[in-house]
Amino acid sequence: MTYCVGMRLDRGLVFMADTRTNAGVDNVFTFRKMFNWSKPGERVITILTAGNLATTQAVVSLLSERMKAPEDRSPSILEVPTMFQVAKLVGDTLKETVQSQSGNGPVADSTFSATLIVGGQIAGSEPRLFLVYPEGNFIEASDENPFFQIGETKYGRPILLRGYDPAMSFEDAVRILCLSFDSTLKANLSVGMPLDLMTYEKDSFRVGRERRIESDDLAFNALSDAWGQALKTAIHSLPPYAFDDD
Amino acid sequence: MTYCVGMRLDRGLVFMADTRTNAGVDNVFTFRKMFNWSKPGERVITILTAGNLATTQAVVSLLSERMKAPEDRSPSILEVPTMFQVAKLVGDTLKETVQSQSGNGPVADSTFSATLIVGGQIAGSEPRLFLVYPEGNFIEASDENPFFQIGETKYGRPILLRGYDPAMSFEDAVRILCLSFDSTLKANLSVGMPLDLMTYEKDSFRVGRERRIESDDLAFNALSDAWGQALKTAIHSLPPYAFDDD
Repeated sequence: MTYCVGMRLDRGLVFMADTRTNAGVDNVFTFRKMFNWSKPGERVITILTAGNLATTQAVVSLLSERMKAPEDRSPSILEVPTMFQVAKLVGDTLKETVQSQSGNGPVADSTFSATLIVGGQIAGSEPRLFLVYPEGNFIEASDENPFFQIGETKYGRPILLRGYDPAMSFEDAVRILCLSFDSTLKANLSVGMPLDLMTYEKDSFRVGRERRIESDDLAFNALSDAWGQALKTAIHSLPPYAFDDD
Repeated sequence: MTYCVGMRLDRGLVFMADTRTNAGVDNVFTFRKMFNWSKPGERVITILTAGNLATTQAVVSLLSERMKAPEDRSPSILEVPTMFQVAKLVGDTLKETVQSQSGNGPVADSTFSATLIVGGQIAGSEPRLFLVYPEGNFIEASDENPFFQIGETKYGRPILLRGYDPAMSFEDAVRILCLSFDSTLKANLSVGMPLDLMTYEKDSFRVGRERRIESDDLAFNALSDAWGQALKTAIHSLPPYAFDDD
């Protein structure tokens, strides 16, 4: 499994992804699930991946290869003029990859399916964030749905629903992302450290903060510990459930 | 879907269950999923159900019928001497019900599977809490795993993991259960109000507090609102994630 979140803020975009992949519990690896391309000053594009690792790696490789072979008929995500077309290109590549693996030859029980989050900004328009389905179609984040989660999404969802505020700073956004990931890590073995973190400041057209959070990351662990304590305090600050009016 | 929790405390047991059942989003009903039998002064037994509604209703009806027909060869859960045997009887009944529905005749896509939480106390031993699988086997709550969740368990799990304390009062336990249900209700349409709540005080051998929490329940809604605020305060009480040591 996997856990990735892409979030749209007033001041830009934030991405966070775990790195654990597993096929069964004794076949566990660390693989990067956050990928990043940029033309500094003109565009920054980030992709988060969940699903079949062979599929997501193939998609990322295909997207990267096209950048290096500009004579290729297919355009590259570094060349198309809008984020919508980036999402469409990524979706088409994903769909083709899934299809090509499910044709002739040996058949697997699982589908080679994958889901991607694609976000970024191209000069001339706002930052945009998309969720790309295995079928190649996609939806865009909106004011009502300002963030997307993929993978093992449920444990970490309540804190995002409760804590999200479009006006918050990157530090505050990373804080609730850390809490969301901490809740998921504590509940589910298939999501694991290290975590990859990236921020993108609107109209900067370059990668902002980038960081790999290892299991001994002081800031993350301090947050996790403080959160346990703060939650207990928060619980006890509430009125106990009043049975009295039975 | 469903969300039910059975929890073991030093001072007894607490049970909470939602009441929504659905087959698709336009086929939604309210059904009780918490069932309770007692011989006041001697035993109290509570069952929470998740899964196929026809299966769980059949299991509950079979268990109830046996109490009314004492000449029946099968013993009743009001007669067997230990909670272990209650769990075994419930498990056997569940297994037989699932099997009898998956034999000849029309075939459904879904299995007629169900999972149950069984808890209670019989005079002469401690309160005990079991999780009964569709195959009829079961596990018991322990100090390391003092509560069981069934149904849509993920959204509400982090708050239970963080907030549980075996020494807490019933009021405090119901408070974290309300928060766990609130998180789940906010995130998932297939879990719905009203909620059923029951407490059992150790060695009382009678049902403790019993309550149906409707969507206009003042105490629940006050908790939900206060929790939104307390969570925000808790989040802001934490240090922001410190990028500085990059």
